[in-house]
Amino acid sequence: MLRKKHFSIVLCTLAAALLPSAPLLAQHEFDYEEDDYGPVQIGGNENAFGFSQEAAMAIMQAVGTINRYPRAQAETLVNKLAASFKVTPDHIIVTPGSGPILVMAAMAYAEPGKNVVTVEPGYLQLTSAFRRFGGEVKAVPLNDKLEHDLAAIEKAIDANTVIVYICNPNNPTGTVVDPAALKAFIERVPENVLVFVDEAYLELAEGGLEKHTMAPLVAAGKKNVLVCRTFSKAYGMAGLRVGYAAAAPAIINKLRPYSQGGPSTLGYVGAAAALDDLASMQANIAEYQRVRKMVTDALDALQIKYAEPHGSFVFMHTGIDIREFQRLMEAENIFVGRPFPPMLDWARVSIGTEQEMNLFLGALRKILASKGRLASR
Amino acid sequence: MLRKKHFSIVLCTLAAALLPSAPLLAQHEFDYEEDDYGPVQIGGNENAFGFSQEAAMAIMQAVGTINRYPRAQAETLVNKLAASFKVTPDHIIVTPGSGPILVMAAMAYAEPGKNVVTVEPGYLQLTSAFRRFGGEVKAVPLNDKLEHDLAAIEKAIDANTVIVYICNPNNPTGTVVDPAALKAFIERVPENVLVFVDEAYLELAEGGLEKHTMAPLVAAGKKNVLVCRTFSKAYGMAGLRVGYAAAAPAIINKLRPYSQGGPSTLGYVGAAAALDDLASMQANIAEYQRVRKMVTDALDALQIKYAEPHGSFVFMHTGIDIREFQRLMEAENIFVGRPFPPMLDWARVSIGTEQEMNLFLGALRKILASKGRLASR
Repeated sequence: MLRKKHFSIVLCTLAAALLPSAPLLAQHEFDYEEDDYGPVQIGGNENAFGFSQEAAMAIMQAVGTINRYPRAQAETLVNKLAASFKVTPDHIIVTPGSGPILVMAAMAYAEPGKNVVTVEPGYLQLTSAFRRFGGEVKAVPLNDKLEHDLAAIEKAIDANTVIVYICNPNNPTGTVVDPAALKAFIERVPENVLVFVDEAYLELAEGGLEKHTMAPLVAAGKKNVLVCRTFSKAYGMAGLRVGYAAAAPAIINKLRPYSQGGPSTLGYVGAAAALDDLASMQANIAEYQRVRKMVTDALDALQIKYAEPHGSFVFMHTGIDIREFQRLMEAENIFVGRPFPPMLDWARVSIGTEQEMNLFLGALRKILASKGRLASR
Repeated sequence: MLRKKHFSIVLCTLAAALLPSAPLLAQHEFDYEEDDYGPVQIGGNENAFGFSQEAAMAIMQAVGTINRYPRAQAETLVNKLAASFKVTPDHIIVTPGSGPILVMAAMAYAEPGKNVVTVEPGYLQLTSAFRRFGGEVKAVPLNDKLEHDLAAIEKAIDANTVIVYICNPNNPTGTVVDPAALKAFIERVPENVLVFVDEAYLELAEGGLEKHTMAPLVAAGKKNVLVCRTFSKAYGMAGLRVGYAAAAPAIINKLRPYSQGGPSTLGYVGAAAALDDLASMQANIAEYQRVRKMVTDALDALQIKYAEPHGSFVFMHTGIDIREFQRLMEAENIFVGRPFPPMLDWARVSIGTEQEMNLFLGALRKILASKGRLASR
């Protein structure tokens, strides 16, 4: 009988033989001839560039172990994340995607009379759960660059505020907060208010993760800040469902009773392998930034306003009601983001491959022309 | 460049070439020579026999798609489960393991003054969460065969009872409830009380799933019964994290606000493939029942009492404090189940491979002999 050890070695060799032509595995999904091009899915902030081959191989090697619960695999990932944050493992929680951490925070902190301060338009998973579980939501408008207005947020904090939710880059606008200003803001927030910094897209920011992240505050022992991240965006593994947070152990312990369980074995091993594959991550980020620039250059030429994009998407002012814009794009087999009230004549468009974005830009020009809104170049 | 379609076909062929000698993939984990035999893990009710090769292949084929969220894959699995329960898809919820469903039920139903009725010793994930979220737990003793005592449970239901939790087979005792008696019991329970039937191990019951399951009550439109199952036990995919429940849509909709998200792409496709692989499931069940019988025959010879086992474990009266028994077994590199108060001189031992159970039985004889408790054969 074939032994497990041999099975793994054979599989690894085969995978290596299969994959080397592809810098990022899932890219092949879009490697069709133009005339049989499938639907362009640029509505869900998924990563069209794919993900680490090392992660793919680690996942395939681990398939034979899924009859067991992922104890050692969980420990390995937690230890790796702790090391990268320069904290002890009790500062880390790993969940199936980062969504559970947002919901757990809402469950742990929401109660009648308490509020969460956030921005509008912003990402709703934490705040809508917070309202569902009995709390209130205080939404502050963005500034005229569609960025977080830290002064307005600070003013909105009151004696009943328990969480300030900062999604950085903001979803759907893609703007980042100046890191020095955010750090100073966090230092001023009362210690009994949790500053929940959602860095789901931060690896893709211009200037890089290290420039922008609030992780050093966690490492420095700050008691009321939580940094949340995911393997769904820059790491390109949305379907694997792995996310995590780093915070003081007292915060992690406040969230933990609301946990419903961790990721799969394959999630743990894939995430751990992806963390080690720096080259793949750098390639993915570079490709995102290159195609994002191509899109904003085209929008400049079309004289279409957009928020400064630092995530895996561009938020643009089409001047067309988003429901109609979605329908017009769907007629071209292109699927863009949903409405983000109150900015209903803007569209959030995820960055796909260069080929996909050229299809999008072609469709955009066609739609604008049909509306008599195509700017002369 | 290699195209996705070709990649899948090549991978599938390779996987088929790699795997055919193994009826159940993960079995290899234990295919060592006796003298380098690893730790015998028979404490966590994991499936040592492995899982469907079809599932393994489906997972490997899907690795290239994990850059996307699992929309279509989720729909496929929900539809398959709905068809197998003869209900519409709005009767089904799928989560990362069945644990989240137990916690969601606790979150949705627990409030001060309300109670859940259960048995002791029993499985604690739902009931301990119910207490954590402010409710009370009324635990009824098992009968002298360590089975659910339905009359006592019925008597314990009061005006404040919101859930009756029946784990069938019961964990840790492994006993099943007579299906006709359970059905009649459920018919008598007040309509405002949810009967939560946890069938995590029921595929392994003597007589089979169909004889014992309460699924027909859901199909018949019963408004206050929920049937919960998992791919972690008989299906042998604990590390994949896929579980589900079937119930009237009103119950599913009451749970859904507490959801923190679904399984991974690989979870959905692995589970769907496993459902279709009846031969693998039958082989797994047969092996469980064969080795379980081998263990109980040996316990009979040793004159050790045990509860009638219908799950992936045997609950046995060693007469030795379980903490000491664990230590003595660990000295033999064997890891058995944790204490289940108040039955502290009993042990829950998971069914491993025949070779593993022979190692366990050898160690058991040695330990009993050292205590002067070895029965003459």
